[in-house]
Amino acid sequence: MNYRVIFNLLSSASFFEAAFLLLPLVTALIYGENVAMAYVISILICLGVGTLFRLFRPKETTMHAKEGFYAVAVCWILFSLLGAIPFVITKEIPNYIDALFETVSGFTTTGASILTDVESLTHASLFWRSFTHWVGGMGILVFIMAILPSKGNGSIIHLMRAESPGPSVSKLVPKIRQTAAILYAIYFGLTVLEIILLLIGRMPLFDALTLSFGTAGTGGFGVKGDSIGSYTLFQQGVITVFMILFGINFNFYYFLLARKFGQAIGISEVRVYLLVILSSVVMIGLNTMFMYDNAFLAFHHAAFQVGSIMTTTGYTTTDFNLWPAFSKTILVALMFVGACAGSTGGGIKVSRIMLFLKGIKNELALAAHPRSIRKVKMDGHTVEPEVIRSVNAYFALYIVIFAVSVLIISLNEFDLTTNFTAVAATLNNIGPGLELVGPTGNFSYFSWGSKLVLIFDMLAGRLELIPLFMLFAPPTWKR
Amino acid sequence: MNYRVIFNLLSSASFFEAAFLLLPLVTALIYGENVAMAYVISILICLGVGTLFRLFRPKETTMHAKEGFYAVAVCWILFSLLGAIPFVITKEIPNYIDALFETVSGFTTTGASILTDVESLTHASLFWRSFTHWVGGMGILVFIMAILPSKGNGSIIHLMRAESPGPSVSKLVPKIRQTAAILYAIYFGLTVLEIILLLIGRMPLFDALTLSFGTAGTGGFGVKGDSIGSYTLFQQGVITVFMILFGINFNFYYFLLARKFGQAIGISEVRVYLLVILSSVVMIGLNTMFMYDNAFLAFHHAAFQVGSIMTTTGYTTTDFNLWPAFSKTILVALMFVGACAGSTGGGIKVSRIMLFLKGIKNELALAAHPRSIRKVKMDGHTVEPEVIRSVNAYFALYIVIFAVSVLIISLNEFDLTTNFTAVAATLNNIGPGLELVGPTGNFSYFSWGSKLVLIFDMLAGRLELIPLFMLFAPPTWKR
Repeated sequence: MNYRVIFNLLSSASFFEAAFLLLPLVTALIYGENVAMAYVISILICLGVGTLFRLFRPKETTMHAKEGFYAVAVCWILFSLLGAIPFVITKEIPNYIDALFETVSGFTTTGASILTDVESLTHASLFWRSFTHWVGGMGILVFIMAILPSKGNGSIIHLMRAESPGPSVSKLVPKIRQTAAILYAIYFGLTVLEIILLLIGRMPLFDALTLSFGTAGTGGFGVKGDSIGSYTLFQQGVITVFMILFGINFNFYYFLLARKFGQAIGISEVRVYLLVILSSVVMIGLNTMFMYDNAFLAFHHAAFQVGSIMTTTGYTTTDFNLWPAFSKTILVALMFVGACAGSTGGGIKVSRIMLFLKGIKNELALAAHPRSIRKVKMDGHTVEPEVIRSVNAYFALYIVIFAVSVLIISLNEFDLTTNFTAVAATLNNIGPGLELVGPTGNFSYFSWGSKLVLIFDMLAGRLELIPLFMLFAPPTWKR
Repeated sequence: MNYRVIFNLLSSASFFEAAFLLLPLVTALIYGENVAMAYVISILICLGVGTLFRLFRPKETTMHAKEGFYAVAVCWILFSLLGAIPFVITKEIPNYIDALFETVSGFTTTGASILTDVESLTHASLFWRSFTHWVGGMGILVFIMAILPSKGNGSIIHLMRAESPGPSVSKLVPKIRQTAAILYAIYFGLTVLEIILLLIGRMPLFDALTLSFGTAGTGGFGVKGDSIGSYTLFQQGVITVFMILFGINFNFYYFLLARKFGQAIGISEVRVYLLVILSSVVMIGLNTMFMYDNAFLAFHHAAFQVGSIMTTTGYTTTDFNLWPAFSKTILVALMFVGACAGSTGGGIKVSRIMLFLKGIKNELALAAHPRSIRKVKMDGHTVEPEVIRSVNAYFALYIVIFAVSVLIISLNEFDLTTNFTAVAATLNNIGPGLELVGPTGNFSYFSWGSKLVLIFDMLAGRLELIPLFMLFAPPTWKR
């Protein structure tokens, strides 16, 4: 394996992180907070690490599939290790494992927190925490590769395969670099639109910025103790709509911008995604109506929570841990479904589930008529057998990681629902689960061993299992 | 579709059930119980139904794949509908839905009960209840087809595919009828051996018979309120060993009897099965040691419960609902693994899980080296792509049925662990779950609607999803 090309990428990643850390530094200066120095030190450390990795110049800059996976895995880990430093230096999260948990939760857009009192943080650190969501949402490495001048054009596709969510990568335009640029532009545009709408809704600028970062990346870190509970109905409504918008396959927006309306509506994943949201909101709204003052409020909170869980954002406006079992069961099911492929959302992804389920119909037909020939189709195209095989392997790997994680954290002796939903909430990059890790709880109860398992799960979930599993599976680590 | 050939089989099934019902009738006469008349009436009803279905003589006796699946589904339903009648007539289970639940639980070898006081039943009904396990264990229809003179020899393979557990049917000898005969002989022989050993262990004959039926079919209905808790350690030990023996792929015994020891040891499914049992016993034994008087007892109960849950029998000697979360989580995981294919056990099956997981290794290798070609191998042979595809479809179907079932029964407003494990315990044909449906609980709490869902799950689990799903999926119901 070409280690030097990976070191080169690690170097660029460190420099970029130094640049990103300028933002909380500026925030600290604006609010006159005494944590500015901590951010300066963090920036210097990032620059130092970046310079260190630059010492290994690659002779060959082309990246192959294998290096793509390894590069994505180690870069995300480095990014998290460096990003956790300011929290420790400012002593806001003195324990490094806790700070790492919080940072991984940020970059992977999970939004699970070990903090018991969010509001005690400085504006600088709250900003950094939310900004990690925005950076992690669309992927760091593809961004870096897309704007850096590089000869290895074919490398980006390998990184994109490893870093972008969904069972397959589709090029919108022939050049992959240009495809990436279009996607980031849409991401940027939608974020700005949400900030403007929240400002129109009279939300303070700081909250509008941080919450928009959290929504755009489908992250879930808020700046208040009750998440989104204390904002106005209008502000909550704006966030509901934008959570759902950021969970849509970005190809949809590209087609809309390119005035290819037929193709936009033709994406069956988006239709199914919206249908699942709609039907869940109706069922939960009816089921919880007795708990709220009026039907509007019940449906308002149902829409917010469904949008939040389905897109794996994790913001909350109400304590759904108190909802009836039926509504809670729907939420748990949605935790696994997740958002669309090609969005910033996590989870298994709607299209992957659709492909998995399409196998049932074929199998039933084949059981009845063993000699017939069936192909899996989606949006009118035959799906390549490799994609089907890859989807099935994903499910197998998912179940293994899930089961082993639940087993390990069950050593904490919490109840089964807490353990099960804690893993579901991290592996699917959602944030809150039920019981101890419900909307009013947090992840501080877990032992450091369990936190490391959940950190692994968050990274594995965000990078869609393969890169991280490859990194930690020794037999495949061969030159 | 050739309905008449299915009616013909339904007729034979009814006559056989009349014959089976003679056994509880004899039991009633021996013990001088006044329920004898109820069993006479039940036998007459079976004979009547059998005669009715005989009115439709098939012109063509050959059964195709599709008819095989439908036949198995409707025959199992009819068998359960008829088998429930004596419980209602004797008024021991006055509600027909409850009686049906109990009977389906028997034939599908689940062992989940709606009874709050088992010991109040007559010997006749206790015998019938346990005997349904023994009948259901190896499958009813293959038995009927194997001993009935029939021209349609090719039909048996279709029935066997639909009725036998596991991802594929392997013929031990060229003739399928002879294969069936060998398997039933092994089943019969092992059952007799267990009865003898229990009698040597000074167990009363009635208990030895009924508990051996329950073990052989991996069912789980007992004749005492505390399941197997009040028997001696030796008796519990015998049952532990036989539960595990009945969960082994019967091909293993055939190879042993044929002195093909190399082939017997070559079945990797059996090795993995035993390894999983061993490691689970060690982990649970260590984890629960503090709860018992000595280490021997801890490992004794661990072995019993692991053997019981892994083979989907469901007998208990201790209330594992009180075990630490780690041990409970292992048990819940084992609930899904299940026994070997080609055994009488339920669950997903060890070999199916092995095939599912083998996809991961190939996918990781392919992600790193996209142009390489990989095949899934098992026991040295390449696995047919159709088997892989069928295994994947099974998992998809399994997840759908599981999720929908949990959602529906969550309307009862019980806790999530009860709902989750109730479905796990029925769909995997185990019996007990956790919390309300734990070892000291039962299924009487559920509404009749939930009971119908769980009845569906038990049948779907026993027949491995496809036949029952086909029956209730209208679009495939085409001539």
